[in-house]
Amino acid sequence: MREIGVVEDASVFIEDGFIRWIGPAGDVSTNLTDDATIFDASAYVALPGFVDAHTHMVFAGSREDEFAKRAEGISYQQIAAEGGGILSTVRATRAASKKELKKAAVRRLDQMLKHGTTTVEIKSGYGLNEETEIKMLEAIRELSDEHLMTIAPTFLGAHAIPPEYAERREGYIELICDRMLPYIARRKLARFCDVFCEEGYFTVSEARLILEKAMSLGLEPKLHADEFTAIGGTPLAATLNATSVDHLEHITSEGIEVLMNSDTVPVLLPGVSFFLKNPYAPARRLIDAGLPVAIATDFNPGSCMSFSMPLMMTIACTQMRMTPEEAITATTLNAAAALGLSSKVGSIEIGKEADIILYDVPNYRFLAYHFGINHVAHVIKHGVMLEFP
Amino acid sequence: MREIGVVEDASVFIEDGFIRWIGPAGDVSTNLTDDATIFDASAYVALPGFVDAHTHMVFAGSREDEFAKRAEGISYQQIAAEGGGILSTVRATRAASKKELKKAAVRRLDQMLKHGTTTVEIKSGYGLNEETEIKMLEAIRELSDEHLMTIAPTFLGAHAIPPEYAERREGYIELICDRMLPYIARRKLARFCDVFCEEGYFTVSEARLILEKAMSLGLEPKLHADEFTAIGGTPLAATLNATSVDHLEHITSEGIEVLMNSDTVPVLLPGVSFFLKNPYAPARRLIDAGLPVAIATDFNPGSCMSFSMPLMMTIACTQMRMTPEEAITATTLNAAAALGLSSKVGSIEIGKEADIILYDVPNYRFLAYHFGINHVAHVIKHGVMLEFP
Repeated sequence: MREIGVVEDASVFIEDGFIRWIGPAGDVSTNLTDDATIFDASAYVALPGFVDAHTHMVFAGSREDEFAKRAEGISYQQIAAEGGGILSTVRATRAASKKELKKAAVRRLDQMLKHGTTTVEIKSGYGLNEETEIKMLEAIRELSDEHLMTIAPTFLGAHAIPPEYAERREGYIELICDRMLPYIARRKLARFCDVFCEEGYFTVSEARLILEKAMSLGLEPKLHADEFTAIGGTPLAATLNATSVDHLEHITSEGIEVLMNSDTVPVLLPGVSFFLKNPYAPARRLIDAGLPVAIATDFNPGSCMSFSMPLMMTIACTQMRMTPEEAITATTLNAAAALGLSSKVGSIEIGKEADIILYDVPNYRFLAYHFGINHVAHVIKHGVMLEFP
Repeated sequence: MREIGVVEDASVFIEDGFIRWIGPAGDVSTNLTDDATIFDASAYVALPGFVDAHTHMVFAGSREDEFAKRAEGISYQQIAAEGGGILSTVRATRAASKKELKKAAVRRLDQMLKHGTTTVEIKSGYGLNEETEIKMLEAIRELSDEHLMTIAPTFLGAHAIPPEYAERREGYIELICDRMLPYIARRKLARFCDVFCEEGYFTVSEARLILEKAMSLGLEPKLHADEFTAIGGTPLAATLNATSVDHLEHITSEGIEVLMNSDTVPVLLPGVSFFLKNPYAPARRLIDAGLPVAIATDFNPGSCMSFSMPLMMTIACTQMRMTPEEAITATTLNAAAALGLSSKVGSIEIGKEADIILYDVPNYRFLAYHFGINHVAHVIKHGVMLEFP
């Protein structure tokens, strides 16, 4: 993760949205097509676009009131127990039309692009009923078709037990397995299926039931695990060889051990620990064990109201003792692996999508070091240099 | 600090750079002069420009290498002991011309304005010899004359013992008292004199000597105290009735007590605790004791490479449990008091400078809540709406 392959004075030749050639700046002219245009990026640092592998960025409403309450010492879990938290966003998202959800999401996607993110995973999970979960996934599908951003869709019906099923949770799990998942699989509305495996949310056996059903229908498994307590989500993720297991603030030594024997990518969410003032995931232990750690924002209105990948890098470096190089790998190539997209995005390599960000910084370390400012000078998405209004 | 006086649907009448009238939007027309132009800001939230009451933003070089080292577990104090830290910036700043210092600073001041800061304190202290301390203060004076930003200049010759005086520190203190301070006072190059009162830097009696000399020459005292250890800086600041005492990560109960009997404003620097992963100042205890807490960035290349006041608010709310309202007061009105400027800036009040920021947010809580993005839509500085390229 520390070998990020810096090339000084390089040129990149892009054709039809893909990277065709990379080499010394002096050699570029012999490798161009006749009609190529040349952009002089010598004033900038070029990095692959960020891959934000864990977000809930389609939502209605906002939760700044909870943010203020936490300052007065009320915990995220207390707020959830009082009907706030996820269920507060569920109420707002159920009440919103698909059009409204998309409008708010487009604004966020535009801003994310401006801040250097070119691929984003988006989860459903603020519906918790058939109608709204499908509405969210349809919104994500349409955003994927209509917006420049590369989007990986995830079904997270198992984000919380909806109030209607509080007394009969197995009924909700049946609804997910017998109705939602087959419908979503048939319409290919999601690539991944995710479960919030946590005390007060879904047990390990419930998560296994849902994910195995999803896998039988062709969806790939992901898991929220070990955020507040280690109830066994990480071993389950490893057993299923999940594409990723996310959060891991309370991962155990056993959890690290099982991940080492799987292809599952651990996705850490430092912005959540920062925002909620909770413990950070033991990034150093995971990396030192040789695991391909990824970092994502978890952008959502309750536990991390930020989509800034560079700021997540700063938090990772300062609070979790990751090096700037590790933070870059974690937000690009490893993050692409957490979405099964590492052959397509996440690095500046021949054959990959030409998703390249040009930063107005003296060197790449400034991205994490000089924080609280957007250093992006130009965004190249699928080979096209974007113009922002 | 929680009563921030939100006014819905208000209008502000500005003339000659100052606020002349504030009232209900409907009444504005009867209070305008004939040639007034009207700007419809109804889509925005208006707040007073931020006052950043503690920065070291004139400097040469950068210290991203130390940032990377700290990720590997090397402490700020270890780095300083090995010749890095402040002395690394001293070497670069001594080597830079005044023109170079100003050029880098102008770029930073421009960015600070774009991010909502309209008043900034700037310290010398990267010279540690007569020539460079004066060069820095002259640069600050010229920036103050030439740039739109309102600037409060502070002499911090006592930032560290320079290497040349390592074996005879009293010689450096004499240089400050007998040569630098009289010269600076005569040319009015600084309003404030500050001392880094800390183990390994300046003792309480050295700080007292320097500050009493400065006060006798008409400069107002400030103090860096209790950052790593409580050696008595805060009681000294209170005794001298310093304009502010800054840092306070390790303030004692006695320190809080003496501040309550002084006019000294406690300035907290949450970005430093975040950046260095050090303990945070006990903001709650200070505020609950009734003290007028201010928050500043401490923008500098070693311990907080950020000038983002909203991000400091987010850190203050999430890590120090300040409410969003307290964070606003701390970054505006109380920060103005920390510079002796509370009659001129820090709030939207009749007679004050028309330094007003318009934010593209649903409500003021979003500034701290939705972090990692610049929400500024328009900057009004001294009554003029700025155009940014």
